[in-house]
Amino acid sequence: MIIVGEKINTSRKAIAEAVENRDTEYIQEVARAQADAGADYIDVNAGTFLKREAAFLTWLVETVQAAVDLPLCLDSPDPKALESALGCHRGEAMINSISLEEDRWEALLPVVSARPCKVIALCMARTSMPTTAQERIDVAVELIEGLQAAGVALENIYVDPLVQPVSVDVRMGPAILDAIAGIRERFPTVNAICGLSNVSYGLPSRKMINRHFLVLAMQRGLNAAILDPTDREMRASLLTARMLLGKDEFCSDYIEGYQQGLYA
Amino acid sequence: MIIVGEKINTSRKAIAEAVENRDTEYIQEVARAQADAGADYIDVNAGTFLKREAAFLTWLVETVQAAVDLPLCLDSPDPKALESALGCHRGEAMINSISLEEDRWEALLPVVSARPCKVIALCMARTSMPTTAQERIDVAVELIEGLQAAGVALENIYVDPLVQPVSVDVRMGPAILDAIAGIRERFPTVNAICGLSNVSYGLPSRKMINRHFLVLAMQRGLNAAILDPTDREMRASLLTARMLLGKDEFCSDYIEGYQQGLYA
Repeated sequence: MIIVGEKINTSRKAIAEAVENRDTEYIQEVARAQADAGADYIDVNAGTFLKREAAFLTWLVETVQAAVDLPLCLDSPDPKALESALGCHRGEAMINSISLEEDRWEALLPVVSARPCKVIALCMARTSMPTTAQERIDVAVELIEGLQAAGVALENIYVDPLVQPVSVDVRMGPAILDAIAGIRERFPTVNAICGLSNVSYGLPSRKMINRHFLVLAMQRGLNAAILDPTDREMRASLLTARMLLGKDEFCSDYIEGYQQGLYA
Repeated sequence: MIIVGEKINTSRKAIAEAVENRDTEYIQEVARAQADAGADYIDVNAGTFLKREAAFLTWLVETVQAAVDLPLCLDSPDPKALESALGCHRGEAMINSISLEEDRWEALLPVVSARPCKVIALCMARTSMPTTAQERIDVAVELIEGLQAAGVALENIYVDPLVQPVSVDVRMGPAILDAIAGIRERFPTVNAICGLSNVSYGLPSRKMINRHFLVLAMQRGLNAAILDPTDREMRASLLTARMLLGKDEFCSDYIEGYQQGLYA
């Protein structure tokens, strides 16, 4: 599993304050904690600042990469903010996210095809949100073929099936899970990624729901996730599911997690 | 999900003592707690008593059914013990379990085909334990066809894929899960059941592993399980997975579980 640490996002109050105050120490602390907990990428999002987004996102890239030796996931729909942030990014970034929405597709295709990078392709159709698994798969196919035509390698594409709340419609659970399986069956070298938390919107005990959704999605082929790697119960679920799915030889990662006190 | 409450088993010390002392009150308390927690069947097992098994199993049937209005799962390989227990059982019992082992098959086939009852068919081959998913499916096919030939209705058969520890071989996880899917694909009206706890044998934090295994198995078609229904975290996992798999309209059972304090 490829883990994208989600915590550095200005929609969170403490992060917004730290970014506004250029609080290098706090941002680096949050970055380091996620890296220590096993993140492969650190997501950075300054989307709430609108006109100052480019400057803040660029500052976040410099600040985070001064503390941790990891590539980042640049989380913005704005090509100017992305280009500015990419200008100082070290290594091969992940870009979150392109979709079929016309403005976004046209704005971001030049950015993601200009350099080797990972790209999250969100299953949002031109003017609507998909509902069924098949609608998600259809959007994914169009995204993948479009990206491939622009020169993006299949193994650099991370399809996000668009996670919607089961509280609105319980059919969303199977629709998302079936979409993950369908996309990976058709394109085995394309990755499947998602943020988990939308699935539990509107329900109590959200973290528990999110953990269970991760486990179910892993079984269907999810191989990357945007989550809080410092959430111990989430990590415990991830390690346990990986072991039960036969991907942890000699159960050694599971046992290491136990020794680290993750299951206490 | 059909839940078989596993707690009344003389391999547990407190139960063995209660059975030996004919402690009606204690046994009925354990039975009621499982019924209140949603058990559909109460398993009764007096296997540790060997020569006294028939008498004790029969006493358990009378004692438990005097307290709860549920059918029981009679857990014994001994046809005499089963016939004695069935003699006083009210309603349609479940019998746990027949397998292809020659003695067991010959001893139990007359018992399970003589009356309408549910029968657990354990994927144990004649002289060996299956390893791969395909070996389990092959044994299941033979069991199902043999039971059907003896007049047992498909919907009364509960195949147990034989859960073995992942600590011994991590390939056991996928083998069991793939077997569940394979059996239910070939025989959609046959049920899939298993005890969960063997999967975690030899590892720390076993209950956590068992819960995760339940969730994964439900996604592959497990529709019955032998477990401790009074384990709150297990029930929470079951309700959460059911909702995420689209089987809890309006999330009402999940929310009811929350209101009962299951997720605290």
